[in-house]
Amino acid sequence: MALAEPLVLYTAKICPFAHRVELALAETGLKSNKDFVRYEIDLKNKPEWYQPKINPASKVPAIAYGGPKTTGDQPSPSSTKIAESLVLIEFVADLFPNSSLLPKDPVLRAKTRFFIDTFANKFGPALFTFQSGKAPNGAEGIFSAIEQLQDLMAPEGLAIGDGTEFTLADAAVIPFFGRMEVSLKNDFGAFPEGEGKSTWETLQTDERFARWKKYWDTAKARESFKTTFDEVTKIFYPITFS
Amino acid sequence: MALAEPLVLYTAKICPFAHRVELALAETGLKSNKDFVRYEIDLKNKPEWYQPKINPASKVPAIAYGGPKTTGDQPSPSSTKIAESLVLIEFVADLFPNSSLLPKDPVLRAKTRFFIDTFANKFGPALFTFQSGKAPNGAEGIFSAIEQLQDLMAPEGLAIGDGTEFTLADAAVIPFFGRMEVSLKNDFGAFPEGEGKSTWETLQTDERFARWKKYWDTAKARESFKTTFDEVTKIFYPITFS
Ligand SMILES: N[C@@H](CCC(=O)N[C@@H](CS)C(=O)NCC(=O)O)C(=O)O
Ligand SMILES: N[C@@H](CCC(=O)N[C@@H](CS)C(=O)NCC(=O)O)C(=O)O
Repeated sequence: MALAEPLVLYTAKICPFAHRVELALAETGLKSNKDFVRYEIDLKNKPEWYQPKINPASKVPAIAYGGPKTTGDQPSPSSTKIAESLVLIEFVADLFPNSSLLPKDPVLRAKTRFFIDTFANKFGPALFTFQSGKAPNGAEGIFSAIEQLQDLMAPEGLAIGDGTEFTLADAAVIPFFGRMEVSLKNDFGAFPEGEGKSTWETLQTDERFARWKKYWDTAKARESFKTTFDEVTKIFYPITFS
Repeated sequence: MALAEPLVLYTAKICPFAHRVELALAETGLKSNKDFVRYEIDLKNKPEWYQPKINPASKVPAIAYGGPKTTGDQPSPSSTKIAESLVLIEFVADLFPNSSLLPKDPVLRAKTRFFIDTFANKFGPALFTFQSGKAPNGAEGIFSAIEQLQDLMAPEGLAIGDGTEFTLADAAVIPFFGRMEVSLKNDFGAFPEGEGKSTWETLQTDERFARWKKYWDTAKARESFKTTFDEVTKIFYPITFS
């Protein structure tokens, strides 16, 4: 599969939202810095052209699509600039309508989007509250959100349908599970010391989370994850959901 | 156009989220209570089967799709139940891929979804804060959100592309503008008395909102709006965004 127009992805290793888009692109078979330009934005020191020329909200991810081929740091006014990770992964699916990113069946497409909605409205806030040390019942919020996601998952494999195909549902959640694993295992976060490690232990051993554990083991073994989540990413970054 | 399977829409006249789905269905040409079942849920007195059998979150809108033909009040376990207004309008677009609800061009599809995202994250909270009487700068939050939406609008007509086609962007926002008009004009809300009427006056006369005013005049003249927004809807309902 190839792109009809030049594409630059503005991203940052550290950012789970941007990681969603990297995963979606990787799963279409596109190669970073061959089929599209991957442009790393240093969030602590953003290029001065980024906000005015690429994303008024000054966040990653963003995509510049179309116009002349560029290296990313001299954005052309003739490319279309698009932002927001969930808009962008749908855009990738629209560029590759024959990829697995969205199933063909309208009902399965709706299940894919409902899974993402549940993740964004339940798991996201729960993880954020826990990491900021403000969760009244410790990890219970995370546990209950994981159970809700489990109820929506295929019996085995990946999230949607019969679990054999990688969809936008997987692209949307994997970056957060990856960072959650790093943060819990290393006790990185504003929660009481030791609570990260014990929460991780529970997620690994409690039968209540057996489906999620299998999901996560399957997901993180994927090539697309391994090539987009590296040592740099593993530095903990306070995740904000906005 | 016709549906492949039976469809029941669980909705409530009063609810702007549910109204999104009624608009999307109407714009495909489907007729309520002919091509699909429109089932009104009384939100103050929900049927006891609604939460367990249709939507665990106990909200409207929801759709039951597939299974045997039903009247709605005896839901079949063999239909698929889907919830969340934005998931549902995408579902309607997926059922009718040749309707105008989503443009064919991936870039325009992304613009449609980005418009909805901006509405949900900027206008929605601003309207809610204003109506609850808690907006620190009065209507300024609404005004600034409307300006952001104007920047994303087609130069004339409806929201996306050349403004001639009704898309999901229109379906997502129209129900809220309709209720906002009723609430402002009638001073229904927890804001200081008179602030509703004066805000409406500003929106009608200030050049700053000229594009929005034209948009809203065009949108509310559409048949799909007129047939789905009636006197009952016009009773103000405290809108919560969740
Ligand atoms: N809702 C946005 C969130 C994106 C976001 O919050 N990105 C962060 C990094 S993870 C960012 O760029 N923040 C701006 C900054 O750090 O200056 C999306 O889904 O794309
Ligand atoms: N996020 C939901 C919101 C739906 C919603 O809040 N619906 C309200 C009515 S406007 C509801 O059914 N509330 C439950 C109740 O009133 O009992 C969506 O977009 O569909």
